[in-house]
Amino acid sequence: MAPSAVPEPVPQEGIVAAKGINGSNNSTAAAGQFTLTDAEKKQVDLVLRTFRCLIADLCEQYKGGHPGGAMGMAAIGTSLWKYAMRYSPRNPDYFNRDRFVLSNGHTCLFQYAFLHLTGYRNMTMDQLKSYHSSRTDSICPGHPEIEHEGIEVTTGPLGQGIANAVGLAVATKHLAATYNRPGFPVVDNTTWCMIGDACLQEGVAMEAIQLAGHWRLGNLVVMYDNNQITCDGSVDLCNTEDVNAKMRACGWHVVDIEDGNWDVEAIVRAMDEARAVRDRPTFINIHTVIGIGSAVAGDAKAHGAAYGAADVANIKKTFGMDPEQHFVVGDEVYDYFRGAVSRGEQTEAEWNALVAAYAREHPDLAAEFKKRVSGDWVDDWHKFIPAKEDFPTTPTPSRKSAGLVCNPIAAGLNNLMVGTADLSPSVNMIWKGKVDFQNPDLRTSCGINGDYSGRYIHYGIREHAMAAISNGLAAFNKGTILPVTSSFFMFYIYAAPGVRMGALQRLQQIHIATHDSIGTGEDGPTHQPIALPALYRAMPNLLYVRPCDSEETAGAFVLAMEARDTPTIISLSRQALEQYPQHTSREGVLRGAYVFREEEEADVTLIGVGAEMVFAVRTAALLKEKHGIRARIVSFPCQRVFERQPVEYKREVLRYRSRAPRVVIEAYAVNGWERYADAGFSMASFGHSLPGPDAYKYFGFDEEVIAPAVAALVDDVRANGVESLRGEFRDLNPVNHHH
Amino acid sequence: MAPSAVPEPVPQEGIVAAKGINGSNNSTAAAGQFTLTDAEKKQVDLVLRTFRCLIADLCEQYKGGHPGGAMGMAAIGTSLWKYAMRYSPRNPDYFNRDRFVLSNGHTCLFQYAFLHLTGYRNMTMDQLKSYHSSRTDSICPGHPEIEHEGIEVTTGPLGQGIANAVGLAVATKHLAATYNRPGFPVVDNTTWCMIGDACLQEGVAMEAIQLAGHWRLGNLVVMYDNNQITCDGSVDLCNTEDVNAKMRACGWHVVDIEDGNWDVEAIVRAMDEARAVRDRPTFINIHTVIGIGSAVAGDAKAHGAAYGAADVANIKKTFGMDPEQHFVVGDEVYDYFRGAVSRGEQTEAEWNALVAAYAREHPDLAAEFKKRVSGDWVDDWHKFIPAKEDFPTTPTPSRKSAGLVCNPIAAGLNNLMVGTADLSPSVNMIWKGKVDFQNPDLRTSCGINGDYSGRYIHYGIREHAMAAISNGLAAFNKGTILPVTSSFFMFYIYAAPGVRMGALQRLQQIHIATHDSIGTGEDGPTHQPIALPALYRAMPNLLYVRPCDSEETAGAFVLAMEARDTPTIISLSRQALEQYPQHTSREGVLRGAYVFREEEEADVTLIGVGAEMVFAVRTAALLKEKHGIRARIVSFPCQRVFERQPVEYKREVLRYRSRAPRVVIEAYAVNGWERYADAGFSMASFGHSLPGPDAYKYFGFDEEVIAPAVAALVDDVRANGVESLRGEFRDLNPVNHHH
Repeated sequence: MAPSAVPEPVPQEGIVAAKGINGSNNSTAAAGQFTLTDAEKKQVDLVLRTFRCLIADLCEQYKGGHPGGAMGMAAIGTSLWKYAMRYSPRNPDYFNRDRFVLSNGHTCLFQYAFLHLTGYRNMTMDQLKSYHSSRTDSICPGHPEIEHEGIEVTTGPLGQGIANAVGLAVATKHLAATYNRPGFPVVDNTTWCMIGDACLQEGVAMEAIQLAGHWRLGNLVVMYDNNQITCDGSVDLCNTEDVNAKMRACGWHVVDIEDGNWDVEAIVRAMDEARAVRDRPTFINIHTVIGIGSAVAGDAKAHGAAYGAADVANIKKTFGMDPEQHFVVGDEVYDYFRGAVSRGEQTEAEWNALVAAYAREHPDLAAEFKKRVSGDWVDDWHKFIPAKEDFPTTPTPSRKSAGLVCNPIAAGLNNLMVGTADLSPSVNMIWKGKVDFQNPDLRTSCGINGDYSGRYIHYGIREHAMAAISNGLAAFNKGTILPVTSSFFMFYIYAAPGVRMGALQRLQQIHIATHDSIGTGEDGPTHQPIALPALYRAMPNLLYVRPCDSEETAGAFVLAMEARDTPTIISLSRQALEQYPQHTSREGVLRGAYVFREEEEADVTLIGVGAEMVFAVRTAALLKEKHGIRARIVSFPCQRVFERQPVEYKREVLRYRSRAPRVVIEAYAVNGWERYADAGFSMASFGHSLPGPDAYKYFGFDEEVIAPAVAALVDDVRANGVESLRGEFRDLNPVNHHH
Repeated sequence: MAPSAVPEPVPQEGIVAAKGINGSNNSTAAAGQFTLTDAEKKQVDLVLRTFRCLIADLCEQYKGGHPGGAMGMAAIGTSLWKYAMRYSPRNPDYFNRDRFVLSNGHTCLFQYAFLHLTGYRNMTMDQLKSYHSSRTDSICPGHPEIEHEGIEVTTGPLGQGIANAVGLAVATKHLAATYNRPGFPVVDNTTWCMIGDACLQEGVAMEAIQLAGHWRLGNLVVMYDNNQITCDGSVDLCNTEDVNAKMRACGWHVVDIEDGNWDVEAIVRAMDEARAVRDRPTFINIHTVIGIGSAVAGDAKAHGAAYGAADVANIKKTFGMDPEQHFVVGDEVYDYFRGAVSRGEQTEAEWNALVAAYAREHPDLAAEFKKRVSGDWVDDWHKFIPAKEDFPTTPTPSRKSAGLVCNPIAAGLNNLMVGTADLSPSVNMIWKGKVDFQNPDLRTSCGINGDYSGRYIHYGIREHAMAAISNGLAAFNKGTILPVTSSFFMFYIYAAPGVRMGALQRLQQIHIATHDSIGTGEDGPTHQPIALPALYRAMPNLLYVRPCDSEETAGAFVLAMEARDTPTIISLSRQALEQYPQHTSREGVLRGAYVFREEEEADVTLIGVGAEMVFAVRTAALLKEKHGIRARIVSFPCQRVFERQPVEYKREVLRYRSRAPRVVIEAYAVNGWERYADAGFSMASFGHSLPGPDAYKYFGFDEEVIAPAVAALVDDVRANGVESLRGEFRDLNPVNHHH
């Protein structure tokens, strides 16, 4: 199929039409099409043949890996790294580089091999050969990982990468709208995203595709490696949609490439066209053959296994290479890509000159811009956080407290981009004067306010894409953007795969998770989280924080803001919570747990958590009054942070050595608290639709129920010694025994 | 916009064209259009006005809830319950009933009120009034729940319902293809699914929409309450796609209804048309006004809050009702719906007669069909499970063991529908002679084999929809279908929202989760689960089982098959595992944990789990040989099942009273094991891309590392007493201390 008609390029605020890097052949649709000379075509042919044999060899050595996609995509990669993409191999983090995302991350050799060919220092042939080896120094893991040179985001779980790419493109749009000035397009990079058939089936990808179309991200190009093969066989087994029509319905520009295996000319033209189309994202549907050249070409067998020595030899014969030789990359091939380094240096030098001129013309803005580039925050955020005295002392929902803390930070610190999965009225993240991140054309077409400079993001009802796009925002340039997401805590189970990828990549983010626990009330068990905290408390490099009042909410934000390599979930109540200014402290939150109320001769330590602190406080009072039992109270907002404290501190807080048992009170599954407590008053079932206070009562959360259960435990310990509790964690909630 | 042209109805194998229930007015598009007389129009008008005031009153009494959608959808509901849907209020579980799913579950009053009007016994006016009350006997929770009369599935988390509806429609297609014979359409019901703007943004819904189009589910009708409002405001804030074009691209038939507020005639015609279109699912795009009649009509404020007394009075005035009266449903309105009960009884009687005739004509098939209807399984599955002796004794991946166990069950017991999220070659769930569930037309159009009688489902790379569609399959009729899903364990984080809804609804399912733990190897940290087991171990009413060899895998299946109200995740290894026929037992698995190898004078109890049992066994040997330490070993495949055992059994297995510390060895985050162990050898970080054995070694999983760490613990206990461990869980893995 011929490429579709090209719409007129639409110039954008302050951004001159972007250019490819393919030198004299460079062309936008308006300026004549890209062509290759016959000599260049011969070179390209050699490159593609060499590349495919190299991939086959790399998988063959350890008899594993994913050769098929990488081999099929050789012409796409050649078009991209040789002609279309702007990057600087010797300074891979050059700020205004184009971003490349390999959403079909299992084809990682594709990316590794092009990084090698274009002169990324770390990606030596020796490193390429470490793929699937037992070398612990390998930078060639089974899927690309952000910590390695030239990799923008860690991909692998399908669908994540394309959503990350949307985030990267949003970052560019936002920074361009904020910092570009006429004649000074200091931010004008393009995001290129490679996907396979799978990414078009994953929900998170479809959510992200909708948003990219809605936002009209003209700086995003998705290249679809359309080989019609997945693990199970033909894509027809499970997908027969008209993908081009669907992408158009989502507001994308679509180009078809019939011969994606060899026709570099057509692919580069499509890429030029994609760059020229500025008013919407482009989807290049590129027809390829998986494992091209192999005996299993075009078959599912070509996807995820080495081809065997005989077939690798056969591939080499097919491609006119010597079957006896391995890992062969001839000088001609290296020469072909050699310009990449100098081109990159030149691109970078031009950008540096541009920024220098910009600094002369717009000194203040340039100073701020440079700070953004450096990853430093543009203002001291500490000053925005309210003091304890500034909070209301009357009962306040912690979701409201979160607004009181976060709104001034968001207003003052333009690093924050705050989004919500359609729960603006519930999550309280709107600050006065916020501007929506929107395509400005919506003002006329739909009456929707906002523009690309906006920092408030309506993600729609797309929790998963929200988290995955956030990862892209955070990964754009470390520290430049601090993404904040928000939704009901329960729906962070939809977002979990994205939240996890953020934690894995050490991307700072703040997830505002409101309506936690059964206090959520009437919405019922579908909306009441029970098990989800167990996931997030166990997840490496993630802080799950449940503050119990406004002061602790301030502490949660300090923790989250200081965690520059770690995402944080701040877990908040729907309902109004008692305020404990005499007891709570933000410094305490920074230690994970602390003594909320001391009692030297205590018979029991009650551990209060978040919205259920009130039950600890009331139980302590009732224990004293009715049972003559002295209870001390520990507030425990964050397990992971507490784990990091010195053992002496931990012992002091939890009184490990005392005879007093420790009881945790929390309306979640108790799993994991056994580390800190001898007994728990918790949930053993899903919730129930009742008004919040009634839901608590229904499940036994009531000091009149808790206190006698604790008293019985204390009696038992007096009789049998605290050692008797070892290894037999007690479930004190009588309601749980009926379930 | 006028309804689109109607394609010729395509008759299907053994299914006569379905009919609406609207008596004399009944019509397919071919037979003349549905019309209302003027008198009927007046009745309808009164019904709609009454209905809307009732909803406003119901939300007003407790000042909360979601009135807007329910009011907007009144005409849709009237069309459905009065004219289009086949159901029997006095026997809500009548097998061949149409299924209705409210995917926008927050509008639950919509469904509750129609259940009331059409004569469902339990849904009294008194019950309607319990919505948002503190009554614990309410059957009107904030979202519909499956345990209540007339509710097919629990919905609420957006996007789930439409995927459930796809599952219900698949169940019908499958049972029809299996049991219908010419002239005997014993299964021919339609699934009607109501969605709002949100469901069109959730990824799981888009995955399900793709599949419904691919499978050409002509028995599925989705009614889109297109009010263009979500919590944040206009849908234009976050979605500007051309939804009709997109649905068509996904293979759906699309009908537009311009006036969805009042035009019952047009809606019924569209529903008739939808029923007539048998070769694809139908999407009825119905334009409505949220909160119609209220002062906030058409605004986001109409969505999720009561309107206040003044506005409710205003609504009643607008609709010609008495503002002083509340919860008014006049006789005329009840009369209008009164035929529903007798119509339902008649529908049922006709079906009973049909089944009786079918039984005469096809006695064997009918006997089997009746068994399916009863929910009993058609064969004794126990006999299909291999005996211990039948398993290989050489190292075997437990994913392979799972195939050895599940394949004969699937082959023999046609209740099973086994699906995979595109990992057929990896999960080993294909049995000899399996037939794919597919639209048979794909044979000619794409060369894809299969038909609707098939029981092997290619879900594509859509883990979330797989789980949510499975819920629909299981909910169709309790016991009729036992859905099996399969993917890598890590990707059950994508499926988690659906898996959770299955647990909440007590739907039996088996999730085959392979490639668990870091043993997965080269795919790297993105594919290696660390925290996910903590979620599933904490989730109420779910069994997470990690068998350590083939015999335990057999036990895991026995457990899962016997858990008729509970879903089970069977967590399996990619890599070959040692087999322990002398030690393992399926009966042990049924108790959650058991003594794998006893040692009377033990110094330590090692808890081995799943794929990491090998480290417990090797460590025990090395402890004996090198350190003179006697270790007993407990195998611990399932925490939840162990929790159910009598305390005596638990004490015996874990030797709570002994001086020997207990050490769990598992390559996951240890969270939750603190209940059973004093120390753990576990993971504190994400994984690493290395071949499986190297990944284990890299993270310290090696008897040469584990044994000395355990020995040091034993020394410590000898010196300080086992009590010293209380409350200070020990992390024995030295690697974790570097992270």
